[in-house]
Amino acid sequence: MAHRSTIHETLTAVFQVRRFPDTVRAGESAIDRNSSVSDRCPPGQRTELAVLLWERALDPAKGTWSLPGGRLRDGEDLDASAARQLAEKVDVRELTHLEQVWVFSDPDRVPGDRRIASAYLGLVPLTAEPVLPPDTRWHPVSDLPAMSFDHGTVVRHARNRLAAKLSYTNIAFALAPATFTMSTLREIYCAALGYDVDTTNLQRVLTRRKVITPTGDTTSPGRAGGRPAALYRFTDTEIRVTDEFAALRPPS
Amino acid sequence: MAHRSTIHETLTAVFQVRRFPDTVRAGESAIDRNSSVSDRCPPGQRTELAVLLWERALDPAKGTWSLPGGRLRDGEDLDASAARQLAEKVDVRELTHLEQVWVFSDPDRVPGDRRIASAYLGLVPLTAEPVLPPDTRWHPVSDLPAMSFDHGTVVRHARNRLAAKLSYTNIAFALAPATFTMSTLREIYCAALGYDVDTTNLQRVLTRRKVITPTGDTTSPGRAGGRPAALYRFTDTEIRVTDEFAALRPPS
Repeated sequence: MAHRSTIHETLTAVFQVRRFPDTVRAGESAIDRNSSVSDRCPPGQRTELAVLLWERALDPAKGTWSLPGGRLRDGEDLDASAARQLAEKVDVRELTHLEQVWVFSDPDRVPGDRRIASAYLGLVPLTAEPVLPPDTRWHPVSDLPAMSFDHGTVVRHARNRLAAKLSYTNIAFALAPATFTMSTLREIYCAALGYDVDTTNLQRVLTRRKVITPTGDTTSPGRAGGRPAALYRFTDTEIRVTDEFAALRPPS
Repeated sequence: MAHRSTIHETLTAVFQVRRFPDTVRAGESAIDRNSSVSDRCPPGQRTELAVLLWERALDPAKGTWSLPGGRLRDGEDLDASAARQLAEKVDVRELTHLEQVWVFSDPDRVPGDRRIASAYLGLVPLTAEPVLPPDTRWHPVSDLPAMSFDHGTVVRHARNRLAAKLSYTNIAFALAPATFTMSTLREIYCAALGYDVDTTNLQRVLTRRKVITPTGDTTSPGRAGGRPAALYRFTDTEIRVTDEFAALRPPS
């Protein structure tokens, strides 16, 4: 049986919770704004989950925005390939988490040669400010530009995976600074999930599950203009299931 | 840059909890038996997680055992390809769950042309007895035969994924019969996890999370030789996260 030429590539959705200017973008309608993630989060928050995209200067799909990635080389496996491709767009040492999420293999997902795309989810913490090449920019996930091929679908899939993992793992460690107040952590969860969460509930459940640990320090009184807030850190900085399903725990 | 010829294939680890004869196999040592999964489960249970393998009649790797799978065709995506390849070994209508779990892309994972393998996890319920071709057989995961290439690694990876998902999803629906006693469900969890679980805890947590629902019926008194046992069913037969992390639930 004859086989069409097939290329294997990686595509990585690198997410960071970021603060965006609260300006109405040209061409954005009131409906767009009402349906955006930030409007369901606390008013005036303007903190959004953002994804790293680069603009294609050449055809195919010139002028559209793409996820970082590219062709798998002979001597490397997919994880190494994803890291190498990412390094062209962002210092990969700033990534706190990188994992395979899905393979997109529709025979017609791109024109020309068949391309099978292994999609990755990458995370960068709130406080990092990676230096980006001129063609590359952070975009709010709630307001994506014209996307190349099926890259919009890949972003949505990776975002859904992130949201699911926020509910049963400690993956938020990779979005948070080393230490943080509960107010900041709520801002991060809200942006990443796309809906608001209650700070008190969040603190209670994450503490009970030992996902976060108080550092013993507080913010300096002047910084937030109010009373000092307790600082926390994530207990672990490797992903783990945090579920309380003790009945199914392995014997220790 | 020159590219070595690359083939994309699927490999599916189809698991079923099955009862095996309690005989010592030729060549099996006491240490092997002591470390096997069944020995950590209730004594005399002999119920084990099994994986579907076929024996290679030809080289390469003649006489070793392989997962069902094969080369991706031009007109199909990976999900369709996995289902098609599986159909040669087992009636795929007996599968209650099939999902992508990982991609194995080590450049040297098989001799000859590079093969990138998309691994799937497939599940068949306890009560199904699929008709198998002559080269195909169920093997206890705790006692795998000589495996082809990296197929043993694929089995372990898929089994770990299954065990993780048992702790935060309702995936056991795909291993269980339509209705079951708690005793049978514990047998299934024990075999799939590789360690024993407490029936009372299991019932409590699965009921609280609404993962299982009593049918209102009981077993007939004579069947188990004791008093009638309550029958349950899984509330849903699509996979979902069952975690109780209410603080992170989307607004309804």
